[in-house]
Amino acid sequence: MTGNTYGRAFRITACGESYGGALAVICDGIPAGMTLAREEIQAELDRRRPGTSPIDSPRLETDQCEVFSGVFEGKTTGAPVGIMIRNVDTEVEHIEQYRRVKDIIRPGHAEYTYRIKYDDHADWCGAGRASGRETAARVAAGALAKKILARDGIEVVGYVKELHGITSRPMSFEDIRDNREKTEIRCPDLVAAEQMIQRAMDVKAEGDTVGGILEIIARNVPPGLGEPVFDKLEANLGKGLLSIPAVKGVEFGTGFALARMKGSEANDIPYLDGDVIRFRSNHGGGIDGGISNGEDIVVRMVVKPTSTISIDQDSVNMATLQPAQFAATTRRDAQICGRAVPVGEAMVAVTLLDHLMLWKGYDAVSKVEHHLPWRPRG
Amino acid sequence: MTGNTYGRAFRITACGESYGGALAVICDGIPAGMTLAREEIQAELDRRRPGTSPIDSPRLETDQCEVFSGVFEGKTTGAPVGIMIRNVDTEVEHIEQYRRVKDIIRPGHAEYTYRIKYDDHADWCGAGRASGRETAARVAAGALAKKILARDGIEVVGYVKELHGITSRPMSFEDIRDNREKTEIRCPDLVAAEQMIQRAMDVKAEGDTVGGILEIIARNVPPGLGEPVFDKLEANLGKGLLSIPAVKGVEFGTGFALARMKGSEANDIPYLDGDVIRFRSNHGGGIDGGISNGEDIVVRMVVKPTSTISIDQDSVNMATLQPAQFAATTRRDAQICGRAVPVGEAMVAVTLLDHLMLWKGYDAVSKVEHHLPWRPRG
Amino acid sequence: MTGNTYGRAFRITACGESYGGALAVICDGIPAGMTLAREEIQAELDRRRPGTSPIDSPRLETDQCEVFSGVFEGKTTGAPVGIMIRNVDTEVEHIEQYRRVKDIIRPGHAEYTYRIKYDDHADWCGAGRASGRETAARVAAGALAKKILARDGIEVVGYVKELHGITSRPMSFEDIRDNREKTEIRCPDLVAAEQMIQRAMDVKAEGDTVGGILEIIARNVPPGLGEPVFDKLEANLGKGLLSIPAVKGVEFGTGFALARMKGSEANDIPYLDGDVIRFRSNHGGGIDGGISNGEDIVVRMVVKPTSTISIDQDSVNMATLQPAQFAATTRRDAQICGRAVPVGEAMVAVTLLDHLMLWKGYDAVSKVEHHLPWRPRG
Amino acid sequence: MTGNTYGRAFRITACGESYGGALAVICDGIPAGMTLAREEIQAELDRRRPGTSPIDSPRLETDQCEVFSGVFEGKTTGAPVGIMIRNVDTEVEHIEQYRRVKDIIRPGHAEYTYRIKYDDHADWCGAGRASGRETAARVAAGALAKKILARDGIEVVGYVKELHGITSRPMSFEDIRDNREKTEIRCPDLVAAEQMIQRAMDVKAEGDTVGGILEIIARNVPPGLGEPVFDKLEANLGKGLLSIPAVKGVEFGTGFALARMKGSEANDIPYLDGDVIRFRSNHGGGIDGGISNGEDIVVRMVVKPTSTISIDQDSVNMATLQPAQFAATTRRDAQICGRAVPVGEAMVAVTLLDHLMLWKGYDAVSKVEHHLPWRPRG
Repeated sequence: MTGNTYGRAFRITACGESYGGALAVICDGIPAGMTLAREEIQAELDRRRPGTSPIDSPRLETDQCEVFSGVFEGKTTGAPVGIMIRNVDTEVEHIEQYRRVKDIIRPGHAEYTYRIKYDDHADWCGAGRASGRETAARVAAGALAKKILARDGIEVVGYVKELHGITSRPMSFEDIRDNREKTEIRCPDLVAAEQMIQRAMDVKAEGDTVGGILEIIARNVPPGLGEPVFDKLEANLGKGLLSIPAVKGVEFGTGFALARMKGSEANDIPYLDGDVIRFRSNHGGGIDGGISNGEDIVVRMVVKPTSTISIDQDSVNMATLQPAQFAATTRRDAQICGRAVPVGEAMVAVTLLDHLMLWKGYDAVSKVEHHLPWRPRG
Repeated sequence: MTGNTYGRAFRITACGESYGGALAVICDGIPAGMTLAREEIQAELDRRRPGTSPIDSPRLETDQCEVFSGVFEGKTTGAPVGIMIRNVDTEVEHIEQYRRVKDIIRPGHAEYTYRIKYDDHADWCGAGRASGRETAARVAAGALAKKILARDGIEVVGYVKELHGITSRPMSFEDIRDNREKTEIRCPDLVAAEQMIQRAMDVKAEGDTVGGILEIIARNVPPGLGEPVFDKLEANLGKGLLSIPAVKGVEFGTGFALARMKGSEANDIPYLDGDVIRFRSNHGGGIDGGISNGEDIVVRMVVKPTSTISIDQDSVNMATLQPAQFAATTRRDAQICGRAVPVGEAMVAVTLLDHLMLWKGYDAVSKVEHHLPWRPRG
Repeated sequence: MTGNTYGRAFRITACGESYGGALAVICDGIPAGMTLAREEIQAELDRRRPGTSPIDSPRLETDQCEVFSGVFEGKTTGAPVGIMIRNVDTEVEHIEQYRRVKDIIRPGHAEYTYRIKYDDHADWCGAGRASGRETAARVAAGALAKKILARDGIEVVGYVKELHGITSRPMSFEDIRDNREKTEIRCPDLVAAEQMIQRAMDVKAEGDTVGGILEIIARNVPPGLGEPVFDKLEANLGKGLLSIPAVKGVEFGTGFALARMKGSEANDIPYLDGDVIRFRSNHGGGIDGGISNGEDIVVRMVVKPTSTISIDQDSVNMATLQPAQFAATTRRDAQICGRAVPVGEAMVAVTLLDHLMLWKGYDAVSKVEHHLPWRPRG
Repeated sequence: MTGNTYGRAFRITACGESYGGALAVICDGIPAGMTLAREEIQAELDRRRPGTSPIDSPRLETDQCEVFSGVFEGKTTGAPVGIMIRNVDTEVEHIEQYRRVKDIIRPGHAEYTYRIKYDDHADWCGAGRASGRETAARVAAGALAKKILARDGIEVVGYVKELHGITSRPMSFEDIRDNREKTEIRCPDLVAAEQMIQRAMDVKAEGDTVGGILEIIARNVPPGLGEPVFDKLEANLGKGLLSIPAVKGVEFGTGFALARMKGSEANDIPYLDGDVIRFRSNHGGGIDGGISNGEDIVVRMVVKPTSTISIDQDSVNMATLQPAQFAATTRRDAQICGRAVPVGEAMVAVTLLDHLMLWKGYDAVSKVEHHLPWRPRG
């Protein structure tokens, strides 16, 4: 496993398993001289934390973070920022529960592939490194990236757009931003949100789970981010989001629906808004030729239904190579879409910051002189 | 622009513009001792070459390649393989045609973002580096990757699954492979293919263009490819495909439709096929926990309608910052899905090979001892 | 600062400052299934730890490490191994001592360059990230790399070859290995070692410090490591060693003395030792064409005299831009050569392992089938 | 071999063998809008070209370059610049000469290590990729890097400081720059130069060769370049130089002689030159804490004697595993120090530019606002 570092100019490196001692992330490329308090990172972690709602996992992790390097007397120094989150809800009863089924593939989980790859020694406890628990480290890094981007007015806002067929109605950016945190499902359309929560409760009662679609919008991204031809902005944003557990697809702007459109419909027509070049539509999701064009970056990702269900499933015992039955009894989320929102935002923010630094240098990040005729919207 | 290298263990680096002297690609990590003839690469390039069908661009590029390094007396040496493709259809009349509109944003193209990023000096001729012409270099590299993968029995097969709403019916892998090359649209369902071609001819007559969806299947991929947590197989395949011009979305297995499923439906159930572990369904697209599971890798990508149309469009003159009209008169494709098939296959092959080398070392690639109990299907 | 990750296939990422909360290192690419106890890492850390000898710094850091990820029930899992070392000797009196002189350049230290680079916000306490304290994280990673290499019989042995003009006499590999740890100066020639210690005590009494030369030998390295043309083995070993604080030069084999030799003297002549190809001399330091040749890798590095001295020095106040005087009063090492030995070994081991994994794949590292006709020496 | 890409923000990728069709280099990260003529690159290539002096190889390569991408109507576009140099002096007689001895290790060359690494299929002709011929591609890339650096006033000047014990006397930067190109040995001390040339002629008459030491000085490098802790400026400059064929050591500033100094002698004392902070000595070679300090970057590298000699040498036949005799009859250089000067300069320039871009962003490279109080010297 040598895939635990992400980014080129702004780089994050993470480690930690579901039932290990701790998760940690090292964030490299942090500009110097920025005030940074532990609480700012904690606030984002609290958005992802389990155990706060009946539709989420009941695992009781407090997800308290410690910032142990890169900050001196309240300010960043330019040195890498190290953040640690200790696992606390790892009682032996849970470990033993996993031990009893350690040789049986849990359908939808990664036991088989980890066992193949890691010489039968994969960590079988709570999915080990394959657990969604690792995303806490992403969220911590994302909190830093968001704060740096915010200094240039860049905002990254995610929400649940669809859950098991229930969809959020179209809304303005401001309405999305202002309403999405009002429920644990993070859908800004509060009518749809209520339906989603009810649906999650219903499938939970059946012992089942559901999937959904998240949309993430980045506003005020300066035109110019993205490095053709292989490090286009879509390519790296897509990579970042597809690296999140359970994500099986991403699309930008109008996405897969472009397959049913004509060029005359799909082309985003430029116009002048004062002396600023803007586009009348955003089918391209704010990216042309792999480079941001100043419009909102709009990307969606599909989250598959949580794999852990409370229904008997056929399986295979990898040790004996015999058929087996698997019935989940471990703690689980009826859906993970709501908690995945800060994770998706984190990967978008980290990727945008990496591109901003590649282009402008990390020295310039705090003082980006945006290219005219671009300017942040009022 | 510092994004022209792709991959970590198997690495390709490309350059070249639409109307420059030549395209080139350097492929690093080629195993030594493999026979390699120029014609093997040429055969793949001929699949992508324009000017061979009325639904493709009439530009007459012969796309003849030269292998100028890394091969000695007919065999690879382990040194990087350099491949060059000269541009030939670059007469001054075409250049002048572009010059006349060089300050006007061609809707759907990258003039604006390139101009912002590259200090007003972007190559305006035929979209320069942003042109789909660069994909010839990808195809050349893909030909090498495919050849190396084929030694382990790995096959990469792409086709057009949907064009402007017309869809290919479900077919077996063998039927897809054997029929897709029978028409220029590369749809293996020959009834649908005929409809697609007609649709492309119709929209061409309107001066318009259409988009579509490609599916790429990789068969006999050994379980174990993918490097969690950031270099998961979906993440890097997604990056590779999203770096292709006009691609605006990717999905694996059941993809976005997973948003409407329950866990009990979406989980791929393992079973024993003799002593080989297999899965009864493939909603995950052959990847669990970011690592290949031995089933077919199945990925789809959406290709937006070709941006160049022969219909007047509103635009902006970037030099004068005045409104402008743009009417395309340059050569164009009514659709690019058919020609995009070898490009998509190339990015999948290059990415799989990179992961295979990362895991097994490039020394072992030609002699992969696949982990038991996995073995290629009969 | 985005330079805190090292390596391509085996990758380490580090953070932490002299007076921060903790140092940490994440080691990515660890093979699965290897037993690993905290004590094995601690043993190497203890070799580098300060406060154990009058010629070293009196700072009392216990350098106790915690392994908080990547190990499950005593074995590695393939997930990245996270290691943390808390700083303990960081009393406020020491911090205040640094605060008093925070705007004055300490000659030989990095205050000026850090201040230029990090917008005046550099961590002024104990040199912050520029302190040699960060090398504890390197040593922890090196302990892991050494253990993995040892499974293939590869040994990495460093020692002090010269201190302020006093040189260790030529000795066999075995004598070096068996005697170097007998004194705190880590010189295996015990007569020279005694003189070196005396010299260090003498200059310490003068308030001064001395530099020296370390040699590091890697034995049983299989032929084939190194990736021409830019990632040659010398290039990456050189990079690794030159990244250590205070190192200002490296040389391989006969090194700079080659400038005074003829080709007929400098060429290492091959011969047959049974059916193994060996070389009669080792002027090349075990590397031909950037690739290991099976002979001992021999590299030396020069360590400049410790910058912190107890003698008044002219300097400049960076805040006032006025001349200033600087008299060190902080804790210091009279020499750091002895403690630098495990650091140099660590960088050599990490680099060799990275190359071994790049070539053979990390999957194969534990079961390298060395190319015939090479075999480890008896 | 996956080591043919160098750099992170400014990146070069090279290919080509001694007797292949051509050498090529792709330079990624070139700022847009810079005038660039083929002749500017050719001028640097001519400095490295063989066949121009009796002390160099008589091989008649014209080294004419073609710039085939990244330049449009005389200016760079921001797209990667592709450069090709065709091999021309590759007559069959030379190839057959190499064929006759292809299984015999040429002492000092890389046949054995390449054969081990590349499965017996290594290119045996003229050393293949291991030949110094590949350095032409480095020089072409270096020409670009130098031109970009020159826009900020940064100059990179190399010369031969020592040849087989004959040393150049200490001289000012200006005298070095103005005199080094006056002789083919590129030693600015013209008395020493004459002695060096005579020594080379003498050893050539004996059938032998000699080595030497090159010094490279970079002037007007802004303080702030270098990325602690692993990508320190010494680390990456050292890597770049140690990747050049025949280089076996590098040292910065006072280098290995620091081993005989005390801290009070070795510390570079800062002082004020107006409002600019300067240093009274330069033992550190212009680098403190891995970051440039505004003084001249001074680095030396040792070049081993050319391996190809015209004297019988014992060897081994790798195919038969029998002792063999080897007598070189191929074309060779009596020394390569003079021709290595532009190669060393190229690697220094490419590395400095990479660091400048990492820090400032490639967007800002042409308009670096150097940090006060630094300014270029008069």
